[in-house]
Amino acid sequence: MAVSLYQLVVDAHDLPALARFWCQVLDWQVLFEDEHEIVIGADARALPGICFVPVGERKTVKNRLHIDLSPDDREAEVERILGLGASLAEVGQGEDVTWTVLADPEGNEFCVLRPKKTLLD
Amino acid sequence: MAVSLYQLVVDAHDLPALARFWCQVLDWQVLFEDEHEIVIGADARALPGICFVPVGERKTVKNRLHIDLSPDDREAEVERILGLGASLAEVGQGEDVTWTVLADPEGNEFCVLRPKKTLLD
Repeated sequence: MAVSLYQLVVDAHDLPALARFWCQVLDWQVLFEDEHEIVIGADARALPGICFVPVGERKTVKNRLHIDLSPDDREAEVERILGLGASLAEVGQGEDVTWTVLADPEGNEFCVLRPKKTLLD
Repeated sequence: MAVSLYQLVVDAHDLPALARFWCQVLDWQVLFEDEHEIVIGADARALPGICFVPVGERKTVKNRLHIDLSPDDREAEVERILGLGASLAEVGQGEDVTWTVLADPEGNEFCVLRPKKTLLD
């Protein structure tokens, strides 16, 4: 018996806009889209994907789950992602950290780390 | 220029207990552990992993991000995961859905879907 990590689901208001933002960030594509969900991924067999679903509630507190991204060049990637519609976020991270905290267009926090290739880097 | 999806970070209170729960759910292992974080993954090169970090705040609202799992056998996996310390969760999903909503020991909602192999299944 087993389960595998299939997708990360993100509650959203403007599904097409948020899916487009994350496709541009990750260089992924929209794989499926209807009024109930938009699924994005590198390709259909590259798990996990990200699925955006509609919700009524606005975001009220810092998310308890967030994405960490590994860049090839942190400074350049932060600039690129800010240009796509992200904003700098303040979550009490201090100034001496090796990552940059951003928020996507709906306020979901995520981090751009220093370049890493494995989970032990 | 590029970024890749490196890890999902989960705010936690009892890091070792939550890491152990998710290792058992996913058949993953602890790759790194200190007082600031516990990183788990299938292996160090299988991205993304999951990283548990300590926070002071308790969970107050439904998470805006959650994990969907693909099982080989939904009913059996739901029973197995409930036995590991998960609980059934009610998020307004109704009765006619093809997935089961659970919460991990710290209340983080996640879903066990019907079996799927690709993001287009």
